[in-house]
Amino acid sequence: MKTLSDAFEHTLQDIYYAEMALTKALPKVVKAATSAKLKEAVEAHLAETKEQVKTLEEVFKSLGKPAKGEKCDAIEGLIKETEGLIKEAEGEALNAVLIGVCQAIEHYEIARYGTLREWAKVLGHTEAHDMLSQILDQEKAANSKLTNLAVSEVNEAA
Amino acid sequence: MKTLSDAFEHTLQDIYYAEMALTKALPKVVKAATSAKLKEAVEAHLAETKEQVKTLEEVFKSLGKPAKGEKCDAIEGLIKETEGLIKEAEGEALNAVLIGVCQAIEHYEIARYGTLREWAKVLGHTEAHDMLSQILDQEKAANSKLTNLAVSEVNEAA
Repeated sequence: MKTLSDAFEHTLQDIYYAEMALTKALPKVVKAATSAKLKEAVEAHLAETKEQVKTLEEVFKSLGKPAKGEKCDAIEGLIKETEGLIKEAEGEALNAVLIGVCQAIEHYEIARYGTLREWAKVLGHTEAHDMLSQILDQEKAANSKLTNLAVSEVNEAA
Repeated sequence: MKTLSDAFEHTLQDIYYAEMALTKALPKVVKAATSAKLKEAVEAHLAETKEQVKTLEEVFKSLGKPAKGEKCDAIEGLIKETEGLIKEAEGEALNAVLIGVCQAIEHYEIARYGTLREWAKVLGHTEAHDMLSQILDQEKAANSKLTNLAVSEVNEAA
């Protein structure tokens, strides 16, 4: 990577890999969660994640580049942490730690899409900028939904 | 982990490990960065991180628990990603990707401290709640500083 354009393409490949990895990891969270509202929230976000994979393919297309994933160590670490918590937690702790780690994943995505959107603007990729903004708004909304769920339900139950 | 109290203690050990790992990883970012303002921002956050390690030790103390780190896969992944970017990026891309990955790290911490602070409140750990709030504010300020740096300087240079 030498130019901002290289950095943009690399980070796009990184988040594309991350979203695809999440389409495989989130079903494990849905399965493990014992709160019906949490299951429902993660299932809804899983459906949204599958759409985001397609939107990212449109972003690559708008740049005239092939959609390609690049192994993302950060999401691998976050997923490993999630799988560890599924094994280690039970009872009233389980839903609380699952919400917590899902919020950490959302925050990772918020950081990455925030950066990507800014770079798209600087590079003059208007179409990509708008699609990345749309995904960023979805991630922020998913995170807020988890915050509300944690505050209103899971912590009270625990 | 069975109770919210267990989840709180586990996540505290997790972020304590993460902050200690960052005191070793951030100097590599300082060394690699070629923007003087970025070097300075990361150096300032490194000093803050060392203080946060001590504040976390006070949090453990306030709970009557020994300060103990628990391997955190998420921060390991984020640091591995950072080290990969230091190797792969050069020229105008380098400072941009370093700011991006430092923001991803800040967002990880913002998510974790947000959860921990909420749990401290639910569990009635007032002193811990206040110390965690203070760290959360520092992480948010560090993230905003990086956003301003990215928008004002690095992206323009790239």
